[in-house]
Amino acid sequence: MDAAARSRIADPSLAATGEQKIQWVAKHSPVLNRLARTRLSDGALRGRRVAVVVHLEAKTAYLALLLAEAGAQVVAAGSNPGSTQDAICAALVARGVEVHASHDASREQFDADLLAVADTEPELVVDDGAELTARILEHRPELAARLAGVTEETTTGVARLRAMDAAGKLSFPAIAANDARCKHLFDNRYGTGQSTLAAIDRLTNLNFAGREFCIVGYGWVGKGLARYAGGQGGRVTVVEIEPVAALEAHMDGHRVARLEDALPDADVVIAATGATDAVPADAIPLLKDGVLLANGGHHERELAIDALGSGEEVRPGVNEHAIPGGGRAYVLVDGRQTNVAGGDGHPVEIMDLSFSVQALAVHLLAGGGLAPGLHLFPAELDAEIARTKLATLGIELGEPTQKQREFSERWNV
Amino acid sequence: MDAAARSRIADPSLAATGEQKIQWVAKHSPVLNRLARTRLSDGALRGRRVAVVVHLEAKTAYLALLLAEAGAQVVAAGSNPGSTQDAICAALVARGVEVHASHDASREQFDADLLAVADTEPELVVDDGAELTARILEHRPELAARLAGVTEETTTGVARLRAMDAAGKLSFPAIAANDARCKHLFDNRYGTGQSTLAAIDRLTNLNFAGREFCIVGYGWVGKGLARYAGGQGGRVTVVEIEPVAALEAHMDGHRVARLEDALPDADVVIAATGATDAVPADAIPLLKDGVLLANGGHHERELAIDALGSGEEVRPGVNEHAIPGGGRAYVLVDGRQTNVAGGDGHPVEIMDLSFSVQALAVHLLAGGGLAPGLHLFPAELDAEIARTKLATLGIELGEPTQKQREFSERWNV
Amino acid sequence: MDAAARSRIADPSLAATGEQKIQWVAKHSPVLNRLARTRLSDGALRGRRVAVVVHLEAKTAYLALLLAEAGAQVVAAGSNPGSTQDAICAALVARGVEVHASHDASREQFDADLLAVADTEPELVVDDGAELTARILEHRPELAARLAGVTEETTTGVARLRAMDAAGKLSFPAIAANDARCKHLFDNRYGTGQSTLAAIDRLTNLNFAGREFCIVGYGWVGKGLARYAGGQGGRVTVVEIEPVAALEAHMDGHRVARLEDALPDADVVIAATGATDAVPADAIPLLKDGVLLANGGHHERELAIDALGSGEEVRPGVNEHAIPGGGRAYVLVDGRQTNVAGGDGHPVEIMDLSFSVQALAVHLLAGGGLAPGLHLFPAELDAEIARTKLATLGIELGEPTQKQREFSERWNV
Amino acid sequence: MDAAARSRIADPSLAATGEQKIQWVAKHSPVLNRLARTRLSDGALRGRRVAVVVHLEAKTAYLALLLAEAGAQVVAAGSNPGSTQDAICAALVARGVEVHASHDASREQFDADLLAVADTEPELVVDDGAELTARILEHRPELAARLAGVTEETTTGVARLRAMDAAGKLSFPAIAANDARCKHLFDNRYGTGQSTLAAIDRLTNLNFAGREFCIVGYGWVGKGLARYAGGQGGRVTVVEIEPVAALEAHMDGHRVARLEDALPDADVVIAATGATDAVPADAIPLLKDGVLLANGGHHERELAIDALGSGEEVRPGVNEHAIPGGGRAYVLVDGRQTNVAGGDGHPVEIMDLSFSVQALAVHLLAGGGLAPGLHLFPAELDAEIARTKLATLGIELGEPTQKQREFSERWNV
Repeated sequence: MDAAARSRIADPSLAATGEQKIQWVAKHSPVLNRLARTRLSDGALRGRRVAVVVHLEAKTAYLALLLAEAGAQVVAAGSNPGSTQDAICAALVARGVEVHASHDASREQFDADLLAVADTEPELVVDDGAELTARILEHRPELAARLAGVTEETTTGVARLRAMDAAGKLSFPAIAANDARCKHLFDNRYGTGQSTLAAIDRLTNLNFAGREFCIVGYGWVGKGLARYAGGQGGRVTVVEIEPVAALEAHMDGHRVARLEDALPDADVVIAATGATDAVPADAIPLLKDGVLLANGGHHERELAIDALGSGEEVRPGVNEHAIPGGGRAYVLVDGRQTNVAGGDGHPVEIMDLSFSVQALAVHLLAGGGLAPGLHLFPAELDAEIARTKLATLGIELGEPTQKQREFSERWNV
Repeated sequence: MDAAARSRIADPSLAATGEQKIQWVAKHSPVLNRLARTRLSDGALRGRRVAVVVHLEAKTAYLALLLAEAGAQVVAAGSNPGSTQDAICAALVARGVEVHASHDASREQFDADLLAVADTEPELVVDDGAELTARILEHRPELAARLAGVTEETTTGVARLRAMDAAGKLSFPAIAANDARCKHLFDNRYGTGQSTLAAIDRLTNLNFAGREFCIVGYGWVGKGLARYAGGQGGRVTVVEIEPVAALEAHMDGHRVARLEDALPDADVVIAATGATDAVPADAIPLLKDGVLLANGGHHERELAIDALGSGEEVRPGVNEHAIPGGGRAYVLVDGRQTNVAGGDGHPVEIMDLSFSVQALAVHLLAGGGLAPGLHLFPAELDAEIARTKLATLGIELGEPTQKQREFSERWNV
Repeated sequence: MDAAARSRIADPSLAATGEQKIQWVAKHSPVLNRLARTRLSDGALRGRRVAVVVHLEAKTAYLALLLAEAGAQVVAAGSNPGSTQDAICAALVARGVEVHASHDASREQFDADLLAVADTEPELVVDDGAELTARILEHRPELAARLAGVTEETTTGVARLRAMDAAGKLSFPAIAANDARCKHLFDNRYGTGQSTLAAIDRLTNLNFAGREFCIVGYGWVGKGLARYAGGQGGRVTVVEIEPVAALEAHMDGHRVARLEDALPDADVVIAATGATDAVPADAIPLLKDGVLLANGGHHERELAIDALGSGEEVRPGVNEHAIPGGGRAYVLVDGRQTNVAGGDGHPVEIMDLSFSVQALAVHLLAGGGLAPGLHLFPAELDAEIARTKLATLGIELGEPTQKQREFSERWNV
Repeated sequence: MDAAARSRIADPSLAATGEQKIQWVAKHSPVLNRLARTRLSDGALRGRRVAVVVHLEAKTAYLALLLAEAGAQVVAAGSNPGSTQDAICAALVARGVEVHASHDASREQFDADLLAVADTEPELVVDDGAELTARILEHRPELAARLAGVTEETTTGVARLRAMDAAGKLSFPAIAANDARCKHLFDNRYGTGQSTLAAIDRLTNLNFAGREFCIVGYGWVGKGLARYAGGQGGRVTVVEIEPVAALEAHMDGHRVARLEDALPDADVVIAATGATDAVPADAIPLLKDGVLLANGGHHERELAIDALGSGEEVRPGVNEHAIPGGGRAYVLVDGRQTNVAGGDGHPVEIMDLSFSVQALAVHLLAGGGLAPGLHLFPAELDAEIARTKLATLGIELGEPTQKQREFSERWNV
C-alpha cells in the first residue's frame, strides 16, 4: 500500500505548491544538507520507523525527507492543527511519506491522527510539545516498550518529559533537543522573535513604534520577543514570576510588573510561558480596548480566550471579541502559536540549526546505547553544528594556543 | 452615470473583502477621524474635484472616502500597478468613488488610467511620485491651468516638483506634504522600516539575525531601514554619496562603503535613494550568490534587474535570476516597492499621520490663497496633527512657564 | 607685554599637565589638522583679533592654537567657570595665548573676565551661549560696530542671537555654527550623549541598567541623551512640550509624560532644553528619594537647585540635598553642564568636527562679505568637513552616475 | 595589637576620603543592608576569621565591614595592586579591619601581602581569581586543612578551582559564587560593560560612535562589553574560539573573525577571555596605528604588552607604545582590568548583588555541612537575592495559579 493510501490529508492536488516551498527550504538549509552527507548517510537510520510530529510546514517536511533519504520509514503529523499546511502535506505524500494531518482539523480528528501515527509503531519520535509521546504513554502504553527513543523540540515538551520521568514513565531514552544551545539560543529566542513580530505585522498591518507590548514569560522565547519588539520601537513590560528572570528583564531595560498591573496599559499581549494560563480568565476583563492578543508559546491554552465574548473575523486571522466590562480585543489566529499559524513559522536558517539538532539526536538514538530517561544533547554535537554553520558562512575560528591550553589546566599562580 | 460605469477596475465582486480591510483602517485612524470632524467638515471641499493617486490599498481608500464624505468628488488611481489591490478598488467603487486601476496592469494600461483620471479635470491632486502631475504637465498641459493645487506624498515626487519649478512649470501651488515632520519622520522612517522588513520576512521566510544588509541611500527611508534591520540582528552597510549623510551613517554604527565594495558581502540589498539606478546594471555582476534584492523606494527603476538573467518564480513574489558571472539572485515583487507590493504597505497608524497631512494639505489648497510654486506644509498644522495624535494616545503635554517664555525672547545674560 | 602679563589665570605652573592634554587632542583631530593646512593657512586670519569664549578645556585650546598658528591674535576665556580647566589655561598662556579664566571663578570674576576679553576689541568671536556677544551688546555696545562677525557654538546661543536679531541688535554677521549638520548631528547628539552618561558614571559609580531616566527636552541633545541612556539599559521618559518632538520621542520607544508625571518615578533627571527652568522650583518637591540631578544643557539655570535644601558633598562633584517634603537628591557638579564640569567634555573626535565648523566659520567671516544678521553655515563647507572626516577614516564615497544626475533634473515620467 | 599595627597600608591619613566613598556605597546597597539584618546577624559568623581578597575599593570595603559587623574577624587584601585604592585601605583600618595592600605595590610586595593574610589563618575566604586560595595551596599547604571554605568571585577563579579539584587539591568546600545567576548575569555582563566603557571614556576622552571594537572572548563579560559598545554606536567584531558562542555573537549582529583578521581594523581592543594571551605576542604587530588596548578580564596577562615598544605616559593611565613594524598603540592602565584600575569598578548596585551572593556564600560555608569540592550557589538563595532586590525597587511578582502549578506537574495531554 503506497503512502497516499496510508495517509489522511486534505488535498493531494496542492503538492506542487508545497514542493516549491520545500525546495526553497532545501536551498537555505546548508547545515542539514552537509550533515545529511557527513552524518546521516551511515546506514544507522536505514529501515528504522521514525515519526515526525512537528508543525507541518516546509522546514519540518524537509527534515522528514532527509530522514527518509537516510533510509528511515517516516510518518508525519502536525503538532497543532492550526499550523498544518495542506500543501506541505500533499507534497510529502507525493514524495512517498505517510502523513496524517490537515489544516484546522478538529480536536478529535487531531487526536485520531496522532494515534494513527502511534499505530505505525514508530521506534523513534521527533516530537513537539511531547504531543505524540504523551499520547503513546496514555493511550498506547504497550507501544512505549518498543520506543528506541524520543527527541523533543520545545520547552513545553521537555517540561512534560521531565514530569513523565518524575512519574516513572520514561522507559526509553529521550533527548531534550530544546535544551541544545544550537536550538534554544537561536530558535526560541531569535526565531520566535523575528517571525512572531512579522506575523503580527502581516495579520494586522499595525504599527509597533511606541506601542506597549506586554510579554508574559521571560524564558528564551520571552527574551527574544522582548528584544524584537524593542528593536522595532516598542516599549516592553515583562510579566514573570521567577525572581532572577524578572530581575534580568528589569536590567535589560524592560518594565517588570504583575500581570494585573501590566494588562491595562498593553496594546499587544504576547504569551510566552510555555505553560498554561499565561493570561487566565480572571485577567481578561483587565484588557485595554483595542488590544491584540497573540500567543508565542506551544499551547493555545496560554490565553483564556473563552473568557472573551464570541468573535467575529475582521481581517483574515484576526477575530474581534468584546471584553467583558468594555472594549474590544483582537485575537490572532484563534490564540494559536502566532508565527506558525499566522505565517510560515521560524526563519528557514534558524530551523536548519534546530533540525540539525533533531537529525543528530535521532541519529544518536538510532545508534542505541543511551539509558532510559532524559538526556542532554551532547556538547560535542552542539559544537559540531555551530562549527558547520560558521563554515557555511565562511567564518573561520581560531585555535587555543599551547599557552592557553596549559593555562586552562593550571591552578597555581 | 454611476461610479461603476465610469470606473475601470478588475473585479467588482471583491468589494466585501476590500470593505473589511477599509473598516479595519477606519478603526485604527484616530487622527483622521478626529480631523474629519473638526477640520474637513467645514464645506471647503464640497463639490471640489479631487484626484487621489496613491498606492491603492486600504489606507488610501479610507482617505479617499473621508474626502468624499467631506463633499469632494473623488477619483482614484494607483501610483504603481504592483501595489494596487483589486479588492480595495472594488470596495471604493461600491462606495461610489470612481477608480481607474487594476493590479499588475501593463505600463500602457497604467498610463491610460492616469490619463483617464486627468480627463476628469481634477482641481486638487493628492499625488505620489508626482505621477499624475507629471502626466498632466506632459500630456494634458491645458488642464494644468485649472489646477487649484497638488499635494505630494514622497521624497521622489517632491524632487520632481522641484525640477518642475526649476523648469518654470509650476503654474499652481504645490505642497511638499512629504516634508511635513508628521510625515517623513514617521512614515518614511518607521513606516517603511517596519513594513519593508516584515514584507521581506513574509516573502522569503528567511532569517535576519547576523545577515549583512546593504542599504543604498541614507535619507529618511534609508535611516529607517537601517534601524529596523539592525533592530532585528542584521549588520548594516550603508551606501551613500552625500558626505554628511554618509558620516551620519558611520556615526550611527553602520559600515559605510561604496556600492562596489558593499555588494559582494550583502545578503540583502535594499534600494532607498528615491531616485534611479541605486543598483545600476554595471553593479549587478558584483552581487553575492543567494542575495535578496528589495526596493524601498518609489521607482522599480532603482534596481537594474534587467541586467540579471530571466527570472523564475520560486515562492510567491520571489523570482530567482542568474547573476551574470555566477550565482543566483532573488528579486522581490519584481523590484517594486517591497512593502506595498509584497504586503499591505505602511502600518495603519503611520498612514493615519501621513494622510492627516494630506487631508489638511488638500483642505488648505481648497481654501485658495497660496501662490503658485512649491510650499512647505505649515508648521502649525504639523503641530496640530501631532497634538491630536498624542491626545488620542492619552499623552498630555506641558506648557512653557512664563519664565521660559520670557527667556526665549531674551538676548542678554 | 607678553601673554602671561596680559592674562588672568589661576596657576601657570600647571602648564605641562595642560600641554599633555592638548597634545592628545592634536593627535586625535585629523580634520582640523588637515583644514589648518588646506584652508586656514591662506593668510585670511593673519593679524586678526579673535576671541574664543568656549568651555576652556583641551579641545578649545587646540582650536585657539590653530587659529593663532594661522596668524590670528587669539584671546580666550571660558564660557562657564565650572568647566574651565586651570591646567589648560596655563598651557595656553605658555604658548603665548592671552587667557582670562579660572576654574570656579565667582560670577563677578567671570563677568569681569569676559569684559576683559571684550576690551581687547576682538574683530571675530567664537562664542558659546553667546556669552561674550551678549555682554558686548549690553556693556560695550560701542565695540559691536567693530565686530567683523560672530560664530556660535550652541543651540542656546543661536536662540539668543535670534532674539538679538529680532531686537534689531545684530549689526554684524553671525553664523549659526550650531546648526551646521557636522556640528549638531554629532556634537549635540552623540557627543553629549556619550560624555554625559560617562561623566555620571564617573561622578556616581552608579548603575544605569534598569534605571528610570527622565530627559527634559527632546532636541538634538535630548535625543542623544535618550539614545545613550537606552543603549546602556536605562528606561527613558521624555518631557517635551513641542508636539512633533514629543511624538517623535514616543515613536522612538520612550515614554512621554508631563514633568510632574515623570519626576516621581525618575532615578536620574537630565535637563536638556537649552533654555531655563527645565526643572523649575515648583517641581522640585516631586523628586524621588535618591534621584540624581544632571544638566546636559548650557545654563546651570536649567535646574532650580536653589529650591532644594543646602547641599553637602558626599563624593567629589556630588552634593546631597534634602528634598522639601522628604528624601534626598544628589546634584551633580552644582548643576553645571555635567560632561564639561564633571569630565573632559565631548569626545575629541566629535569636537574635531564641531571646531572644524568653527574654524571655517571664523575663516569665512574674516574674508568679509556677509551681510549683518544670522547666517547658516554654507552647505558646501559642511560637506567638505564631512568628506575630510570620511577620508581620514579611509572611507571612500561613490559619485552619482550620469543617469542619476540627469534623473535628478527630470520632472517628467 | 590593634588593626593599624597589624596592617600594611600606604597612608592612614586618607581615611576620611575613603570613608566618604564607603558611605556612598552603604547608601546604594539596599540588598546587602537588608540581608545583613535578616541573614548575617544570626551569629554564624561570630568570631570566625574571614579573609576578603577582592579589588580593594569601596564596595569590597563595605562587604568587609558588614561581615565584621556580623561578628567576623576580617582581614583584607587586594586581588590586584593596580586596583587597590589607598584611601579605602586607610578607611578600613580606621574602622578596625586589618589590611595588607597598597596601590601599585610591586609583584613581590603583593605576594608578601597575600601570604601575610594567609598567615592570619583564615577559616573562610572570599577570593577573586583564587589569588589567595592558590597561594595557600602552593605556599601554605598546611593551612588548607583549616579552611572551612572558599567562595570565588570570578570566571577565572572558578576555572582555577576546577583545575584544583581535578588535581585533587580541594580538601575544603568551595562555592562558585561567580556562577550564581545574580552574579554573572549582572556583574560580568552589565557591570563590566558599563564601567569598562565609561573608564575608557574617562581615560581617553575619545569617541565611541562609529569606532571598531574588537572584543576577544564572548563569555558573559564579552557579551556585556559588546552590548555596551554597540549601545554607544560602536561596531563590534568578536573573536571567540568556542563555536556555539561564536555563532551566538554572529546572530547577535556582531562580525565574528579570527584574531588575526580582526586586529588590523580595530580601533579599540578589549580582552575578555578570563584566561591568558587573549592578544598574544605574535599578534601585536597586527595592531592598527592609534589602537586602544584595554583589559576586561582578571589578568593583565590577557594582553602581551611586553611585545610592544617601551611606553610613555600621554594621559594619566594611558601609555603610548610603538607597535613593532609601525604605528602607535595606547595601553590603558598598564593592561590591568580597565574598570577597577582606571575607575571605581563596577556600579555600586551591581556589586550589591554580587556581594550579596558572597555574603550568603560565606554565611553558608560558616554553617558547615558542605562536602569538600566545588559547589554551585543554591538556587533558592539566588532567588532570595533577586526577590530582595526587586522588593527594594518596589517591583512585586505574581504567584503561579493553582492551575499553573498543576500543569507543571502534568505529563499527559
